[in-house]
Amino acid sequence: MSKNRLRVISLGGAGEVGRNCWVLEYGDDAIVLDMGVMFPENEMLGVDLILPDVTYLQERKVKIHGVFITHGHEDHIGALPYLLPLIDLPPVYGTTLTLGLIQPKLKEHKLLDKVERRTIESGGKYTAGPFTIEPFHIAHSIPDAVAFGITTPAGLVVYLTDWKFDHTPVDNWPTDVPKMAELGRRNPLLMLTDCVRAESKGVTPSERVIGEAFDSIFAIAQGRIIVATFASNISRVQQVIDTADAYGRKVVAAGRSMENNVRIAQELGYLRVPEGVLIRPSQMSEYRDDEVVVVCTGSQGEPMAALARMANRDYPHVKIKPGDTVVVSATPIPGNETSVHKVIDNLYRLGAEVVYGSESPIHVSGHAAQEELKMALALLRPQYVVPFHGDYRHMAIYRKLALSMGYTNDQVLLPETGSIMEFSQDYGEITGKGPGGLIYVDGTAIGGDVTNAVLRDRQMLAKDGILMVVVSVDSMTGKVIAGPDLVSRGFTHLRQSTDIIESTKQRVRDSLDNFADYDGQGGVGSTDLTYLQRKIKDTVSEFVYQQTRRRPMVLPVVMEV
Amino acid sequence: MSKNRLRVISLGGAGEVGRNCWVLEYGDDAIVLDMGVMFPENEMLGVDLILPDVTYLQERKVKIHGVFITHGHEDHIGALPYLLPLIDLPPVYGTTLTLGLIQPKLKEHKLLDKVERRTIESGGKYTAGPFTIEPFHIAHSIPDAVAFGITTPAGLVVYLTDWKFDHTPVDNWPTDVPKMAELGRRNPLLMLTDCVRAESKGVTPSERVIGEAFDSIFAIAQGRIIVATFASNISRVQQVIDTADAYGRKVVAAGRSMENNVRIAQELGYLRVPEGVLIRPSQMSEYRDDEVVVVCTGSQGEPMAALARMANRDYPHVKIKPGDTVVVSATPIPGNETSVHKVIDNLYRLGAEVVYGSESPIHVSGHAAQEELKMALALLRPQYVVPFHGDYRHMAIYRKLALSMGYTNDQVLLPETGSIMEFSQDYGEITGKGPGGLIYVDGTAIGGDVTNAVLRDRQMLAKDGILMVVVSVDSMTGKVIAGPDLVSRGFTHLRQSTDIIESTKQRVRDSLDNFADYDGQGGVGSTDLTYLQRKIKDTVSEFVYQQTRRRPMVLPVVMEV
Repeated sequence: MSKNRLRVISLGGAGEVGRNCWVLEYGDDAIVLDMGVMFPENEMLGVDLILPDVTYLQERKVKIHGVFITHGHEDHIGALPYLLPLIDLPPVYGTTLTLGLIQPKLKEHKLLDKVERRTIESGGKYTAGPFTIEPFHIAHSIPDAVAFGITTPAGLVVYLTDWKFDHTPVDNWPTDVPKMAELGRRNPLLMLTDCVRAESKGVTPSERVIGEAFDSIFAIAQGRIIVATFASNISRVQQVIDTADAYGRKVVAAGRSMENNVRIAQELGYLRVPEGVLIRPSQMSEYRDDEVVVVCTGSQGEPMAALARMANRDYPHVKIKPGDTVVVSATPIPGNETSVHKVIDNLYRLGAEVVYGSESPIHVSGHAAQEELKMALALLRPQYVVPFHGDYRHMAIYRKLALSMGYTNDQVLLPETGSIMEFSQDYGEITGKGPGGLIYVDGTAIGGDVTNAVLRDRQMLAKDGILMVVVSVDSMTGKVIAGPDLVSRGFTHLRQSTDIIESTKQRVRDSLDNFADYDGQGGVGSTDLTYLQRKIKDTVSEFVYQQTRRRPMVLPVVMEV
Repeated sequence: MSKNRLRVISLGGAGEVGRNCWVLEYGDDAIVLDMGVMFPENEMLGVDLILPDVTYLQERKVKIHGVFITHGHEDHIGALPYLLPLIDLPPVYGTTLTLGLIQPKLKEHKLLDKVERRTIESGGKYTAGPFTIEPFHIAHSIPDAVAFGITTPAGLVVYLTDWKFDHTPVDNWPTDVPKMAELGRRNPLLMLTDCVRAESKGVTPSERVIGEAFDSIFAIAQGRIIVATFASNISRVQQVIDTADAYGRKVVAAGRSMENNVRIAQELGYLRVPEGVLIRPSQMSEYRDDEVVVVCTGSQGEPMAALARMANRDYPHVKIKPGDTVVVSATPIPGNETSVHKVIDNLYRLGAEVVYGSESPIHVSGHAAQEELKMALALLRPQYVVPFHGDYRHMAIYRKLALSMGYTNDQVLLPETGSIMEFSQDYGEITGKGPGGLIYVDGTAIGGDVTNAVLRDRQMLAKDGILMVVVSVDSMTGKVIAGPDLVSRGFTHLRQSTDIIESTKQRVRDSLDNFADYDGQGGVGSTDLTYLQRKIKDTVSEFVYQQTRRRPMVLPVVMEV
């Protein structure tokens, strides 16, 4: 490790979509960029969240001058309350709305008094140790998002993530192209950029096109209109409110995070609500169906969110009925397709008209497509570029784009989470790999006790259930004095399977009859106990598989009495 | 139930994609159309397959004159070996290739001698009880597929499923449009049609476009080419073979079902292989990389299929390396996106070039899009129409298409699986609901013991694992004489959680100290045992949730000694 090199470490978000977290380190000083969570995949059974792995920071014990946050999405802020206490509670920097969205999280974890929050502004300049950070505005699917120009002793770094070139955004605050051009003139050493839409040709449409689509839907809807979208997409909510107001409809926010975000955004001035347009759910009954719009959570098919509950007629103030028009203003995140489809099916079953899918222009991404990624590269022309916030294929496709613009393979680094990169003038390489494991949150536990071994057990339990065999043995003679009892869960419906249970018991009895006092001491030695357990486990596993072709987890419990 | 009405019952495939199975019944006579399986969703833990529910047939005891199969896909033939024995083994009718694909299934279940197979041909006419069946050829993603015109005492029924209008198919055998026109002139009473692509505008492209896409890939590939597709898509395999031959490459079939289907299709004359083009995997080493094409299974990201194993460098003859070009010639079936993406990510990691996704014309569907669905309706103009082989939203969208062509709501019936419909001249309605449950196959068990309760247990086990508390009590005094022992799986990593285990044990001990001899008889009554178990369960559940915010399944086991 060279002293006069800038070290850039991914603690999350490289080769994976989610838990974005980067460290810039020079000498003994560091700053952190973003601190997000990732949501678990299907096979991570029972896991609530996945955090960045901060072991590297804990081990290096560098001085952390601050955590700089780009915007208020969960994959950029969600890990703050879990991880700040593990790294000596450095100050957190963010724009007004971003800090507004962070605040309730810190409060929930009783950290509000312990974490210093510093407001930053686009166009400002902030010093943190040897780093100077210049936030500049970018357009994304949440307001008040920024990217960073970061002057380091080794050179200029541009951290440009979760952005698109929207020249006509709903809040009239487009990506700061002049600032990008200015940074480009300063010969950046390195750019880190999101690449999650590297598969998509052309340019991502402006958020403004949604307004026109809403307009055409509102123009013909006869009954209630229900719009589901991401709670953080304040611009989308703004367009619902604007269109509702134009058509003389009242707006109800439904779903906890939608209600919260609308309140926070309104309080901080990021949502313009004409007097009297926003009403409470309980007031809906005072209006005709064609005077109401509901904007709600659940666009990803989440079973406990407002839309799914409406589709199950389980939501207090909104029960779907014929005449309702439901607009799913979001694209399913990969992995959520089936849940989203199920909700849409149920809405149709209840007689609603549903507007969804790629055929209707009711959703646009907040991320840059190929031509935008190329334009950013052309504007900034960094010496090295690191695509992240994408799966590996997105990064590989980004590399192809860069190569097509004259970059060489040496200039485009594809790290994985945990990778350590080093940079100095005319030098940039992946030089090592630090800890970058998946840190699971399950209940209150962070990492630690929910290990991959525990997840493997859950997967095995999920597949064919568990079958416990309990026997009591006399601690002096080793003779079985009670049992075997069989207890199973998730293996078979017991009342319909008495045969298999009885015959398994008989098998165990037979095998235990052959059990001898192996240690010859007259008592049950620990060797004997282990042997007995193994014997029961093998006997039962083999017999059950033979009979059913299933492999429940077999757990022998031998009690010495 | 009226005697002179045709009864049409969905045993599967209505409002769901998969396990297609229909019954046509008149008086005491019936035929079955298709008998397929459905693949389980993520939350159906451990389930291998889902079968149609044939309870209706078993209870009605009508004479089943035959099972008529349209084509050899799993969702049309997969349930035959499981269900034929439950309905007195009626004869199975299918085209040559279809029966060729059914044969190994019957063999595996030792039914080859017990099930009569009757070959049918497009253009033929077959009588089964009061029904006359006229198969006619349709284009689909497997050769030798047919639809049926079925003359019944109540009128003409057209069963048109898994089809598209491909006027230029690879096997030069297009959908029999003249036959559809002829059936249309006979005033069909009813049409049943697949509707899974009702969301897609326009016309599904011809399978022939794939050849051009392959051509452009083969023209520039420098190393090996690996094409993953559905094993049943013989036309796709044909195009791989044709293109390979044109570019002087040998073809290797990899993956069990690909090898089997290629063999069967070749034997039956559905695959034209130029002399010497097909080689065995073991012969690959005799050729240069640019002389080889591998056509393999795994296009859905299945973890044990050839492509995923290649991507994990775990496939004997093909280890992915830089220079390889991998073509994923399939679209992920909803629910498989994440698995497919993972495989593509790994292929990129190993340095392969990967061609996939909607941007490249390397896959077309085998199903009709909106304009084709409308054209079929215009050609046949049935009095009633039932869309199926789609989720409910597809059926609802199909209904909109039909309404736009002048059909009325009464003429478009949307059944669910289990629905019973009745038809006669100028009459068609859903009149009832028979059994239509999800019949799970898990190991060797068909339905029965793997119930929804068992699946719920598996879901609970999957979420937070299981925690067993075992104690032995004296059967005379009720005193605890051994334990409590705690055994857990999938709950926590024990070595990292001795605290929680020890404190839970202590809690149980404390609560058992208060346990009294409730029945006053001096022994442990069954009331006491139940009480003791409940007490342990409640104590542990509450304490563990308080400590960890997790809810493992708590299972108290009390042994009387």
